[in-house]
Amino acid sequence: MTRPVTLFTGQWADLPLETLAKKVGAWGFDGLELACWGDHFEVDKALESDGYVRAKRALLEQCNLKFFAISNHLVGQCVCDPIDERHKSILPARVWGDGDPEGVRQRAAEEMRNTARAARLFGVNVVNGFTGSSVWAKLYFFPPTSQKDIDAGYQDFAARWLPILDVFQAEGVRFALEVHPTEIAYDIYTSQRALKALNHHPSFGFNLDPSHLAHQFLNPVFFIDEFPDRIFHVHVKDSRVQLNGRNSILSSHLDFGDPRRGWDFVSPGHGDVKWDPFIRALNRAGYQGPLSIEWEDSGMDREYGVQEALRMIRGQDFAPSSVAFDAAFAK
Amino acid sequence: MTRPVTLFTGQWADLPLETLAKKVGAWGFDGLELACWGDHFEVDKALESDGYVRAKRALLEQCNLKFFAISNHLVGQCVCDPIDERHKSILPARVWGDGDPEGVRQRAAEEMRNTARAARLFGVNVVNGFTGSSVWAKLYFFPPTSQKDIDAGYQDFAARWLPILDVFQAEGVRFALEVHPTEIAYDIYTSQRALKALNHHPSFGFNLDPSHLAHQFLNPVFFIDEFPDRIFHVHVKDSRVQLNGRNSILSSHLDFGDPRRGWDFVSPGHGDVKWDPFIRALNRAGYQGPLSIEWEDSGMDREYGVQEALRMIRGQDFAPSSVAFDAAFAK
Amino acid sequence: MTRPVTLFTGQWADLPLETLAKKVGAWGFDGLELACWGDHFEVDKALESDGYVRAKRALLEQCNLKFFAISNHLVGQCVCDPIDERHKSILPARVWGDGDPEGVRQRAAEEMRNTARAARLFGVNVVNGFTGSSVWAKLYFFPPTSQKDIDAGYQDFAARWLPILDVFQAEGVRFALEVHPTEIAYDIYTSQRALKALNHHPSFGFNLDPSHLAHQFLNPVFFIDEFPDRIFHVHVKDSRVQLNGRNSILSSHLDFGDPRRGWDFVSPGHGDVKWDPFIRALNRAGYQGPLSIEWEDSGMDREYGVQEALRMIRGQDFAPSSVAFDAAFAK
Amino acid sequence: MTRPVTLFTGQWADLPLETLAKKVGAWGFDGLELACWGDHFEVDKALESDGYVRAKRALLEQCNLKFFAISNHLVGQCVCDPIDERHKSILPARVWGDGDPEGVRQRAAEEMRNTARAARLFGVNVVNGFTGSSVWAKLYFFPPTSQKDIDAGYQDFAARWLPILDVFQAEGVRFALEVHPTEIAYDIYTSQRALKALNHHPSFGFNLDPSHLAHQFLNPVFFIDEFPDRIFHVHVKDSRVQLNGRNSILSSHLDFGDPRRGWDFVSPGHGDVKWDPFIRALNRAGYQGPLSIEWEDSGMDREYGVQEALRMIRGQDFAPSSVAFDAAFAK
Amino acid sequence: MTRPVTLFTGQWADLPLETLAKKVGAWGFDGLELACWGDHFEVDKALESDGYVRAKRALLEQCNLKFFAISNHLVGQCVCDPIDERHKSILPARVWGDGDPEGVRQRAAEEMRNTARAARLFGVNVVNGFTGSSVWAKLYFFPPTSQKDIDAGYQDFAARWLPILDVFQAEGVRFALEVHPTEIAYDIYTSQRALKALNHHPSFGFNLDPSHLAHQFLNPVFFIDEFPDRIFHVHVKDSRVQLNGRNSILSSHLDFGDPRRGWDFVSPGHGDVKWDPFIRALNRAGYQGPLSIEWEDSGMDREYGVQEALRMIRGQDFAPSSVAFDAAFAK
Amino acid sequence: MTRPVTLFTGQWADLPLETLAKKVGAWGFDGLELACWGDHFEVDKALESDGYVRAKRALLEQCNLKFFAISNHLVGQCVCDPIDERHKSILPARVWGDGDPEGVRQRAAEEMRNTARAARLFGVNVVNGFTGSSVWAKLYFFPPTSQKDIDAGYQDFAARWLPILDVFQAEGVRFALEVHPTEIAYDIYTSQRALKALNHHPSFGFNLDPSHLAHQFLNPVFFIDEFPDRIFHVHVKDSRVQLNGRNSILSSHLDFGDPRRGWDFVSPGHGDVKWDPFIRALNRAGYQGPLSIEWEDSGMDREYGVQEALRMIRGQDFAPSSVAFDAAFAK
Repeated sequence: MTRPVTLFTGQWADLPLETLAKKVGAWGFDGLELACWGDHFEVDKALESDGYVRAKRALLEQCNLKFFAISNHLVGQCVCDPIDERHKSILPARVWGDGDPEGVRQRAAEEMRNTARAARLFGVNVVNGFTGSSVWAKLYFFPPTSQKDIDAGYQDFAARWLPILDVFQAEGVRFALEVHPTEIAYDIYTSQRALKALNHHPSFGFNLDPSHLAHQFLNPVFFIDEFPDRIFHVHVKDSRVQLNGRNSILSSHLDFGDPRRGWDFVSPGHGDVKWDPFIRALNRAGYQGPLSIEWEDSGMDREYGVQEALRMIRGQDFAPSSVAFDAAFAK
Repeated sequence: MTRPVTLFTGQWADLPLETLAKKVGAWGFDGLELACWGDHFEVDKALESDGYVRAKRALLEQCNLKFFAISNHLVGQCVCDPIDERHKSILPARVWGDGDPEGVRQRAAEEMRNTARAARLFGVNVVNGFTGSSVWAKLYFFPPTSQKDIDAGYQDFAARWLPILDVFQAEGVRFALEVHPTEIAYDIYTSQRALKALNHHPSFGFNLDPSHLAHQFLNPVFFIDEFPDRIFHVHVKDSRVQLNGRNSILSSHLDFGDPRRGWDFVSPGHGDVKWDPFIRALNRAGYQGPLSIEWEDSGMDREYGVQEALRMIRGQDFAPSSVAFDAAFAK
Repeated sequence: MTRPVTLFTGQWADLPLETLAKKVGAWGFDGLELACWGDHFEVDKALESDGYVRAKRALLEQCNLKFFAISNHLVGQCVCDPIDERHKSILPARVWGDGDPEGVRQRAAEEMRNTARAARLFGVNVVNGFTGSSVWAKLYFFPPTSQKDIDAGYQDFAARWLPILDVFQAEGVRFALEVHPTEIAYDIYTSQRALKALNHHPSFGFNLDPSHLAHQFLNPVFFIDEFPDRIFHVHVKDSRVQLNGRNSILSSHLDFGDPRRGWDFVSPGHGDVKWDPFIRALNRAGYQGPLSIEWEDSGMDREYGVQEALRMIRGQDFAPSSVAFDAAFAK
Repeated sequence: MTRPVTLFTGQWADLPLETLAKKVGAWGFDGLELACWGDHFEVDKALESDGYVRAKRALLEQCNLKFFAISNHLVGQCVCDPIDERHKSILPARVWGDGDPEGVRQRAAEEMRNTARAARLFGVNVVNGFTGSSVWAKLYFFPPTSQKDIDAGYQDFAARWLPILDVFQAEGVRFALEVHPTEIAYDIYTSQRALKALNHHPSFGFNLDPSHLAHQFLNPVFFIDEFPDRIFHVHVKDSRVQLNGRNSILSSHLDFGDPRRGWDFVSPGHGDVKWDPFIRALNRAGYQGPLSIEWEDSGMDREYGVQEALRMIRGQDFAPSSVAFDAAFAK
Repeated sequence: MTRPVTLFTGQWADLPLETLAKKVGAWGFDGLELACWGDHFEVDKALESDGYVRAKRALLEQCNLKFFAISNHLVGQCVCDPIDERHKSILPARVWGDGDPEGVRQRAAEEMRNTARAARLFGVNVVNGFTGSSVWAKLYFFPPTSQKDIDAGYQDFAARWLPILDVFQAEGVRFALEVHPTEIAYDIYTSQRALKALNHHPSFGFNLDPSHLAHQFLNPVFFIDEFPDRIFHVHVKDSRVQLNGRNSILSSHLDFGDPRRGWDFVSPGHGDVKWDPFIRALNRAGYQGPLSIEWEDSGMDREYGVQEALRMIRGQDFAPSSVAFDAAFAK
Repeated sequence: MTRPVTLFTGQWADLPLETLAKKVGAWGFDGLELACWGDHFEVDKALESDGYVRAKRALLEQCNLKFFAISNHLVGQCVCDPIDERHKSILPARVWGDGDPEGVRQRAAEEMRNTARAARLFGVNVVNGFTGSSVWAKLYFFPPTSQKDIDAGYQDFAARWLPILDVFQAEGVRFALEVHPTEIAYDIYTSQRALKALNHHPSFGFNLDPSHLAHQFLNPVFFIDEFPDRIFHVHVKDSRVQLNGRNSILSSHLDFGDPRRGWDFVSPGHGDVKWDPFIRALNRAGYQGPLSIEWEDSGMDREYGVQEALRMIRGQDFAPSSVAFDAAFAK
């Protein structure tokens, strides 16, 4: 009702933006959150020529679509990660280069600085993304991972990201980490730790996606109430726990969509996220930005699902009250 | 009541075995499951001289303690793992060597073969342990880990462990993997996959420790009923989920004992494991081996706790019925 | 579907009735339950002149709105309560007078008798309201409150309300107590006690509002099944328990709308009330009166909310079956 | 969205088919599942004359209604049951005959063979129905019912139904047992036993109606995943557990619709069935047939309810995904 | 602590009473509830000769065992049941006779009258048992069982049992029906119906065994509070629900002890019965009789189990308070 | 195991201290927490003569009982409460005086100052007690209680208690409020508010009694972790929620012990308090004081219950670990 609803284009990169934008406009969305892959939003081209971003804007306006943020999860992931073959498939060739891990990480860092610059040129002030983490893979403590090891991971994160965030600040753009397993922050305690490692840099905050919290049994309301000023962007995505005593909450090395998994992503409204308290918490935090549907559900047709999700979230979004009820008792 | 109760010595390696054995005997345990670290059971010395194992046996008998298994988790872990600095702290210098990963893995494999040989000399037919895993660290699928990647991990596991298991078979000893996150098998589906990768090698089975299943929300009864012939050994250990909406089931990079963690180990009987159905399932499976207490609880004095755990499990262990009740109605 | 849906005007007294009635008619409500405060329905004016009630009726008819009940919670509250400063703000000056407690209580009692008379003139046969209670504030028993003390409270209630109820009976109007903490009856057992104290006076029954029962963990279905003939009116209002281990079900002296409270009112359909069994129980009880939305939600815009609530309750209200299914098997 | 939605006419046999078909077409259903009682579909008349089935087809086509299955629960029930007076009321006179139990059972068997023949003539390849059971009434084991007794019941079932199923096979029609208490199969284990007794006859499968599983606390998803190739037809019906500590899940000898019962049927969407995972499981199983609403709710007007149920199930039915999401990350 | 604990001998009929009594005395029980089968208590012999009951009493006294009740479930079952082959195995030959159903029922009725006479001779004033039921097997309503059918079942029950109960009354003995599926009463509503059918005959009450209520999801506390004056005897027995989404609460035609069943009997303290509120309810009801352990657990050695159960119930039984606490605040 | 267990004598004031102390010593308690009523500990007499406290000490030592705290709940309650007749019954005549509310409050304040003085003379440094509250009775907000009203209540509390606490500080004694409904603090948020109102006076802390938190659905572990330095004393008492859909969590104006109440006190170990995490939290907070059983259970004999409670809490109390487990892996 009150906030614009956009679609994150990351899972639609198999479609040219022009095709996608026409569909999305027709479905009644208010805007798009462009992914920096496929032909949706190319950072290098945006920096090369004025015409590129003008053309993107024109295309969106033609479809009656607004834009509030762009997203560069894939490159961001490579800033801190131990690099292996899997990263090659998510990077442009110019960032991957010869694949030497440290070289990849440094080129990824430079690309993120360029993403900030491109965002300003495009006219948005939020970039969503991932950070990677050098300690994620040591999650479960055997052989024992000491707090010294973990601390070193957070220092590495700060060392790599602070220079990036300074560029963001200079450009007037903010970076919104999507809190997520595999990242430097995946729950409230690790988010506190990440913020502390960065000395609470003003350009660093969160893209809150409740689907990554629900299957960890976190309450996204508590997350919003803990960091009300750091909610820079919001994803509308859902997940569902489907434990049966035989599978593990750790997913059993099974692909998404395998019904034997302990949890899975589902179309918003079909999962464990409780949207009413989520919206109330956003209202309390004064969040005015878009609700951006990131749609992923291995068991549902995506065009059907995304329209259903749009109706769902419009039905859930409501404005806070401006009346004190007890006051009405007095004349 | 009916099965011997032993103590796993792994968490007591700061004490010389002699000191420990006297205490354990006095507490009323039936035996010990010796860890292959500290001075408890040293594989190299066992192979070097007859006197070593004779002396160990004499010490235990003197304390009125039996022995059914030895355990070599630390070396086993290094057979398949990507090796990093943390592994150095859990290995004997001769296995670590120069720390070159592939060299470490091969020396670890040889040490496991020797462990089988030493076990036979010592007079037990079960070795408990870990296997490590080349794919554990790719648990959460981002960047996407394909099933091809995972399959490669299981093939690596089979390639490294089949030659070890053949030595076990030749020695008449069985290897019991403690099903556990960080290992090649951590739930029912991954245990099926591991067995399949090994073509169901007869010397490979499980050391069932329910504490590693409970916080994954697995039902250990279903595990026993799925693999009744592969339960080679049993640990009595407990864990407890303590979610509060702020922490994650993934543990928030917090140490054991930190009350903010989403789950933790606790003294047996204080956690989420339901021992009555566990014992019934062991009865159904015909498991006759020891119930071996592995005690770990960061919030309780260990000497108090281990005695309480002994009383708890003796109170829970009971023999199956030999009477059909309806039959009693007929004269 | 089958019952008229009205709006209770109590929380809208900041709007003149004319403004409100036009809105409510446009939203598609079937009628209004007028509050006896603001300018919505003034008991003294109704008794003074025929023109007053004719004008009210005309206004409602013009907006296509029916009327089934009026409500006088505020004055009713003062019949039995220990009076303090807070009561001044909810009373007309002529009832408050000099504020002497016993004087206030007696003037409130007289005003309730007049409310019955005004209701008949207006053409409705139900007055909803509160009763107050001299023992509510002694709820939690320390220092010990004896059953003798409590009994005295119910006798005081009977002594004050029986003469009022006799006037109701003479006028052909019924009084419907909104069962509610702070009142003489707030659950099934206290409702039984109140009815017994009144010797089951035929003019005394209940305005069932499930929002006041849900956070006490009462099942409103059991309430309806217990007192099917005493359900004189029904409010559609909702509440939600939001305990987090830190707050209390007793509300921590926090205002409505504070997210730290242990429970709060929410727009109907957003809370803990289960409407399907509620409607079935009303069907069983043969209740034919209005479903009157009392809307209070500190976190939602009220005009948005009240329309959503109207849609919700129309979607939930359904007629009972008139077919015996098994009969259809026989030809 | 993707599957046709039909209405099962069994509970509407008090209406002539012509009356019913017009209503159902107007409500927007895609088709009808005709019951073999009332005048809806009469097996004997269908076999007598070509004109009968042509007229039925014409009537349905005129109302824009398709047909995928017919149903003969009542006669099927009598094939294996111990026959008593209650069966008389559900049978045509020609099948009941003199009521001698074995004669009834044999005439019922012959009628089922004829039902297969009539189905082929009518142009559908599924017949839904019941089987009856000689051992259902010995459900609770006192006096002790031995496994020998139970086995005899399954052998009796096989002996009576195999010849029927052979006729089905010859006619190219399949029989779909509605898994249900009172039948030879009422959960997963008894369905396995029934299939085994029939040597997995290819013409025998299930009409999956989740309302009969929910109050037994079965998960219909597990049923579908267990027998994906045997789901021949699907009913959309719902039930709800309403235990209160005083009633029994065994229903207390109370009629449907009595609020004191431990469980009851309710309009689809008002009960305990979770439709989203149900649809996903049907998608996985590749089930392409109709979703047939069997409507029974003693507390709701049936014409209101059946239209609400149609909207509900259309909103829940969705097509599976044809995109692999991770693939979209790669260009 | 306060009530005697006895053992019901029904499941031990494979042992001669002498053997059993010695064991039971040695285990520390206070007494025995003798079953009227095996050689434990033979009604015909008790009526034949004075010596028989004197010898029984002497044997028990010698073992320091008291007696408060005898039990004749098996014969009682046959008073109302439709008789089939299974009943033969639970009856003495003289009652079974030629097996003609009505003859069996009448001989069973006569045997129950004799049981009352024998009880008086033996010196106890309670006989526990079953009643059978002509309508149990029509439990689930398909083909439709009408309330007329059910009413007929209760009238049959009354017609058969009232003459028996008159003999009980004449002998000063009371009959305690063990409320149980398969009997005329199996929950609160059917117990009300049974009492009403008997016009509340003073000699008819209940042997409350919570294990038969727990898996029906009844609360035994509500049962005691509903019928405080009709609790003539109490069994200490336990059951456990073990649903897994695949099995049914109706037990899947599986034997007791099969782990796939939806519920099973377990040793007292291992199941779903909550003993603390159970004891408090007995205290409220003023029940002073024995707590009689009926032990049945297909997964536990019975001699171990029965001793554990004795310790459990002694630890749970406590006397009510005789102090009003608030009174202690005043001097 | 590690902390002394004492008995609070408040509910035993009907017994002379000498009688009680002998019993308590014989039961195996370590000490007594004397109530300042009955003849247990009389503040006025303690201040009058040296001999009084010497005699008390001698009596306790003779029974082998230690003392760590005294308690004066009754007088403390009257410091802030609106005074009515019920307070007369809990006060010494000299404090009640003429019963004028403000006079009573001031004399109660003076008595609390004297209690601090007497505690020092007796040799304990903790006084447990209540504070009363002028706003408790305005708990549920109708008529609307504004935050201004509530703030005024906390200011009144500070104004009355700060001068008392200054005397405590001067005497080297601390006051421990038993957090409890009816008091100025009854949950975490009101405890924060109370501490803030007192500017965190160092002599003010809490006597943590989990029985008053459990039925409010507070987690006592969160309380301890919130105020680790303010836990001055601990009560071992338990309560149990017993909601049935008909009663209210607000207790329905029913006495303790009435089974219809929504919650009640029960003997420790029989209620909803989870003692294991409670003890762990005390270990974390470094609490070294006594565990003092306050025993109240209207359904159990108190002498039986108090001994059972002693065994229960001794079995639950354990010392924290002094070993870091992972360290044991390294040699």
